[in-house]
Amino acid sequence: MPRPTPLSGFPELLPSQRAAELAVLDSLRSTFELHGFASLETRSVETLDQLLRKGETSKEVYVLRRLQAESGDTDTGWGLHFDLTVPLARYVLEHAGKLEFPLRRYQIQKCWRGERPQEGRYREFTQADIDVIGRDELGFDADVEVTEVMAEALSLLPLPPVTLHINNRKLIEGFYLGVGAADPAAVIRAVDKLDKVGADRVRASLLDSAGLDSAQIDQCLALAGISSTDVSFADEVMALGVRHPLLDQGLDELVRALDGATHVRSERFALVADLKVARGLDYYTGTVFEGRMTTHGDVSICAGGRYDALASDGRTTFPGVGISLGVTRILAPLMARGLIDADRSVPSCVLVALPTENDRDSARAVARALRARGIATEIAPTADRFGRQIRHADRRGIPYVWFPATGDSGNQVKDIRSGEQVDADASVWQPPVDDLRPRLVSTDPQELLP
Amino acid sequence: MPRPTPLSGFPELLPSQRAAELAVLDSLRSTFELHGFASLETRSVETLDQLLRKGETSKEVYVLRRLQAESGDTDTGWGLHFDLTVPLARYVLEHAGKLEFPLRRYQIQKCWRGERPQEGRYREFTQADIDVIGRDELGFDADVEVTEVMAEALSLLPLPPVTLHINNRKLIEGFYLGVGAADPAAVIRAVDKLDKVGADRVRASLLDSAGLDSAQIDQCLALAGISSTDVSFADEVMALGVRHPLLDQGLDELVRALDGATHVRSERFALVADLKVARGLDYYTGTVFEGRMTTHGDVSICAGGRYDALASDGRTTFPGVGISLGVTRILAPLMARGLIDADRSVPSCVLVALPTENDRDSARAVARALRARGIATEIAPTADRFGRQIRHADRRGIPYVWFPATGDSGNQVKDIRSGEQVDADASVWQPPVDDLRPRLVSTDPQELLP
Repeated sequence: MPRPTPLSGFPELLPSQRAAELAVLDSLRSTFELHGFASLETRSVETLDQLLRKGETSKEVYVLRRLQAESGDTDTGWGLHFDLTVPLARYVLEHAGKLEFPLRRYQIQKCWRGERPQEGRYREFTQADIDVIGRDELGFDADVEVTEVMAEALSLLPLPPVTLHINNRKLIEGFYLGVGAADPAAVIRAVDKLDKVGADRVRASLLDSAGLDSAQIDQCLALAGISSTDVSFADEVMALGVRHPLLDQGLDELVRALDGATHVRSERFALVADLKVARGLDYYTGTVFEGRMTTHGDVSICAGGRYDALASDGRTTFPGVGISLGVTRILAPLMARGLIDADRSVPSCVLVALPTENDRDSARAVARALRARGIATEIAPTADRFGRQIRHADRRGIPYVWFPATGDSGNQVKDIRSGEQVDADASVWQPPVDDLRPRLVSTDPQELLP
Repeated sequence: MPRPTPLSGFPELLPSQRAAELAVLDSLRSTFELHGFASLETRSVETLDQLLRKGETSKEVYVLRRLQAESGDTDTGWGLHFDLTVPLARYVLEHAGKLEFPLRRYQIQKCWRGERPQEGRYREFTQADIDVIGRDELGFDADVEVTEVMAEALSLLPLPPVTLHINNRKLIEGFYLGVGAADPAAVIRAVDKLDKVGADRVRASLLDSAGLDSAQIDQCLALAGISSTDVSFADEVMALGVRHPLLDQGLDELVRALDGATHVRSERFALVADLKVARGLDYYTGTVFEGRMTTHGDVSICAGGRYDALASDGRTTFPGVGISLGVTRILAPLMARGLIDADRSVPSCVLVALPTENDRDSARAVARALRARGIATEIAPTADRFGRQIRHADRRGIPYVWFPATGDSGNQVKDIRSGEQVDADASVWQPPVDDLRPRLVSTDPQELLP
């Protein structure tokens, strides 16, 4: 068959890139699980009425059809999920009777959107979501916890610096009410466009659509200008002189959320209270999150917040708070530009060399002894010249080549990076812990930290 | 919205079931990686011409259509992959210039088939494949290795007993040629149905379609009756008195493959040379595998073999050998019958109790200290009565409840299974290693071993 060509929007990784992605996914999973978040997966398919409930993303859905359906050319009525929130809402309703609440789950899965591919947009991509879902009620500590967990997770990734912006819808809505706005939702929609369209057009919009006067607009734009990595934002807001009970509640919540992650310290991560973040979606009711990576273009990499009604079956309402992290949105552009990779394309820490084809049994014995102690090991495919076997390891990034004992000499192991070769016993030899697994490496030392 | 209903053929797991599935997937991954197999993922969609090359599965493909395609109601020309072998062949051709051969990869991913659901058949299911792919050539040691790796992987799963049947197409083809069969492929097709239709109908078929006489048929059925867990099968075959060079080569290969896994010992796993296994698919050219789980119905759980031309672009041919393991086919029926589960529904090893709402900061400090040493920990959502907080842990299967120091007493930890409660220091306390993560447990002690 002719050489196949890539499908636009469906990024595919080479083995070393996949090893780098796995290192990221393992790091995320480890953080989520240390905090007791349980892994869940939902089916890839949802019914179209579930997928189309929000309306706005309808045209992005991939619908399924059986190639040779029995009764004419009909769709199944199912589409591939385009995010992990719609499936979670459906899963919670479907299985509520068998779940314990609050349900704290993480979900790392592929999603699909049938949109035109462009820089940073993919038709198939991996999301990593964490959410806490309550039944009937869910305390604000869940917001604090989700902030803390995602802050820790982001701070541990060996990736370019990430900023997690956090705000609170009660804070801004209360402020707008305190200013005297009759329709705070209209103000939120206008201010949400600040970064995109600039202050002048937001002013015009606040004047026309939201009916504010010039002094009120000044106040709203002053609020939007406030940001801080500590809780000093609260004093700045109070200094604007606006008062409203909802504002007080929002300020208190935002201070608590920020406080919950003060122990997270990393040069590659910042948590910022940013009072212009509103998130366009109507269903957020308190905390809102937006994460950005700004060193290689300005890329939105995560989003989320508090929704007081993630799902409801009429009798029971399930409030939730969560954040969705775009793993592919972070990694694919960096990999496409060659900025990150893994230091090897195989898990193997050791290649056992073959002096002759007759040494295969002793090579296998060495390999078994190393694997029994958790050291990933492969055996050279053929008893080539040792130089070729070392090159075989080198091309894959395998750091050690093991020479099994022969008539002339005992077992030896060579670090092919330094060239150092020493006597070794497969039942006790141990490589440095950093050599045990593939590691994510940066080829961009200016901007990525180790 | 009304309570959603399950979609037939799309099994979905509860949190504890997902923890059990993760334990299985982690075990598989660990074995594959210890042998140096690299993780790969391919995109979920393939072009229809790739998917339909084999013909036979065409009606099972789910085709994608954008819900609101711009120019009329047209398919994308893509379908979801129905296995991981077709995508691997395409991936190898597409990326050959950037891959190192032999390529040793494992791939754990979902597949989709649009067939009518029935017991043991799913429309969405997880496969775990290992393959070794060569460029132009691939030595038989790859077959030995794949046998060894899958034998180890299966023997380590805490699941009902599994038997991996192995045979060799050269052996049976050589035997049929030695017997004097003019069309050995017709004999293979007939004998392959032995288990399904019985000896009498196979005899009739060998007489009519393959043109064998009664003595030849006796020989073929005698061969099909041979099986052994050691290499004694070879003597039994030789005792039948049939000679052919291809038979000798096949015998030698099958002995080597079996020998390579002799170190794998488990009461839950057997590797059996089984000379009636042929695998219907035409592209197997040497080793063939078929794995079965027989304690809960007779379920085929893995299949594979050697294909001398996995892929070819006209100039270069890529031979391969591999096995595909049906993770969902193993787990979903056992879970549906309640036979396996995990011992908890959350990763948490410890629940930190809250004496009062004011103790949240000290609870968080305890949790951080435990997590820093790899102990998954969550905090009680509310400062309920301790009895309720212990019940909260119990319902999730969390083994330990931690009571932070208060004015009256120091830190204490309670094993809620034994009731034992002891003084503890969060910076040094360590649970038994078996309590660190959820474990797969059997509720069927007659047939599942620990």
